[in-house]
Amino acid sequence: MHGITNRQVYLSSRPTGVPRAENFSLRVAEVPALAEGEILIRNHYLSADPAMRGWISDVGGYWPQVAIGETMRAFAVGEVIESHHPEYTVGDRLMGIFGWQEYAAVSDKHVLLKVPDGDLSLSLYLGVLGLNGLTAYFGLLDIGAPKQGDTVVVSTAAGAVGSCVGQIGKLRGCRTVGIAGGPAKARQCLEEFGYDIAIDYKSNVNLDEALQAACPNGVDIYFDNTSGPISDAVMRQLRIGARIVICGTASYSSWNPWNSGPRPERHLIVKRARMQGFLATDYAPRYPEAVLTLANWVRRGEVRYAEEILEGVERAPESIERLYRGEHTGKLLIKLPAAQS
Amino acid sequence: MHGITNRQVYLSSRPTGVPRAENFSLRVAEVPALAEGEILIRNHYLSADPAMRGWISDVGGYWPQVAIGETMRAFAVGEVIESHHPEYTVGDRLMGIFGWQEYAAVSDKHVLLKVPDGDLSLSLYLGVLGLNGLTAYFGLLDIGAPKQGDTVVVSTAAGAVGSCVGQIGKLRGCRTVGIAGGPAKARQCLEEFGYDIAIDYKSNVNLDEALQAACPNGVDIYFDNTSGPISDAVMRQLRIGARIVICGTASYSSWNPWNSGPRPERHLIVKRARMQGFLATDYAPRYPEAVLTLANWVRRGEVRYAEEILEGVERAPESIERLYRGEHTGKLLIKLPAAQS
Repeated sequence: MHGITNRQVYLSSRPTGVPRAENFSLRVAEVPALAEGEILIRNHYLSADPAMRGWISDVGGYWPQVAIGETMRAFAVGEVIESHHPEYTVGDRLMGIFGWQEYAAVSDKHVLLKVPDGDLSLSLYLGVLGLNGLTAYFGLLDIGAPKQGDTVVVSTAAGAVGSCVGQIGKLRGCRTVGIAGGPAKARQCLEEFGYDIAIDYKSNVNLDEALQAACPNGVDIYFDNTSGPISDAVMRQLRIGARIVICGTASYSSWNPWNSGPRPERHLIVKRARMQGFLATDYAPRYPEAVLTLANWVRRGEVRYAEEILEGVERAPESIERLYRGEHTGKLLIKLPAAQS
Repeated sequence: MHGITNRQVYLSSRPTGVPRAENFSLRVAEVPALAEGEILIRNHYLSADPAMRGWISDVGGYWPQVAIGETMRAFAVGEVIESHHPEYTVGDRLMGIFGWQEYAAVSDKHVLLKVPDGDLSLSLYLGVLGLNGLTAYFGLLDIGAPKQGDTVVVSTAAGAVGSCVGQIGKLRGCRTVGIAGGPAKARQCLEEFGYDIAIDYKSNVNLDEALQAACPNGVDIYFDNTSGPISDAVMRQLRIGARIVICGTASYSSWNPWNSGPRPERHLIVKRARMQGFLATDYAPRYPEAVLTLANWVRRGEVRYAEEILEGVERAPESIERLYRGEHTGKLLIKLPAAQS
């Protein structure tokens, strides 16, 4: 025992649909003694991600369902304060799956990235230089395979992933069309994230007509964070050889029962198109290269980002619901006292 | 004018759903004089393909809709009997889009393949050495990218395309699972086409359970000719990294109104899977290579095929409906008098 108390947010009841604050509880635990190979991390920032809904609610996902009573699984960045592992030393800054808690005693399997020394805020390694930026980077560049002049359509275009996709698309010489909800986000798409066109799907717009006007030659790449009716409209505008990058399904708060919609098969044949899902965590060996590239883009102002920060581990429980309400702007983070020091 | 009379089957009324014999009529036309660059072909065999339903009924397909009064678009094989084109000489045997008629005066844009001299029946160049075999070849090898030991599931597994996919899969060291309708086809899958397992979806089987038992490690490649409930069941059994080859949508007799079903997005993310449509006609530059390979497999008995032959151009109108009833065995062809000579 360390005599350090650790405030943890754990799952206290299983939600139906989007997890709400009342599905979580706070507890104080002692930090355990480290086993051989483990490291003790003091978290500076915790992440809130739409994928957390699935980690909690869906059976048969890519990771085991979070159990009742388990500290909530979450990406976080922090600093090593004790190490029983030869590759990590006190003071190292790490990004990984460290949970919604102030301290994490973990093995190296939980570490995704050693944060390079430098000028950029540690918080960015949860957003534009973390899983969001990496998701945009590998999803657009590896799965989408953009070519100069391609038309790239992005759903949740002002979000933490989408905003990055749009900007990387511009850097690759693409025309970018962002779909976002509400006039503020549509404006942000144009003014902050450099989209050529922004479509506010919550306005009185006919999405088919708006997409047709925005993409007169059709859609070469659709980077989808939503599934649902936005995707259905984009599928009707594909160009021959289109690539549909399946990143998330934010339109749905549950997959039980399974969601239905127009079938994609005929579009895929007629347009010789490809629809492909991916997880950025599969690309871990290539993170250092990608983070370096993203960091340079951020320093040069070529990739901009937005953050919304909640203070204190006790704010974490409300964060997932905020994400699904779509009220936040950019990356939603929880800042812990350690980040002050 | 040649003084040659040409019996043609033309579209006389637009069907709703699967085209029936009464949607076509027969007429006798004079063969016109050839323009510069044209060739006159005497057809030996005409093809009947499930895709013809879409050519007739669907708007916004990959080819223009067949017009009322137009000779039915069809693949055919025949022999050049007159040529105003430097690349083709009398006696050349060609496969191409020559229509449901006895003679075709066409430009080289309609030619898909010059049939090599050899021992194999000309009829094969509409089936296992024609668009069906080429569809199987490019779809499985290029889109499916099979690896030794992969589990390959094929729908309409005993059909002209599916039977070829299963056998090419075996040649590449895959485990093959065929889904077909009825005990006769299931038996044919095992005895003729070398599938490791055949599932008769028309029997009293629970498709989810049957697939689970047949694919204990999950499905690496799904070659789909159906769309619909068979596909939905296979999607629930994908393995990580699965490839879904979208070839046809035989489950549906119309896409107006558009067909709905369970959404694929969550499967694609969780399994990091890819769903891709294709058209074999996009691969024309690689046909000679593929036909050579397929012909060698056929000669060695490594790829077997079945044919069902209707005699005379007047039998063509009933052929599409026969395909959708699923009563035929293997490739459905119409043999013309020229094939006798």
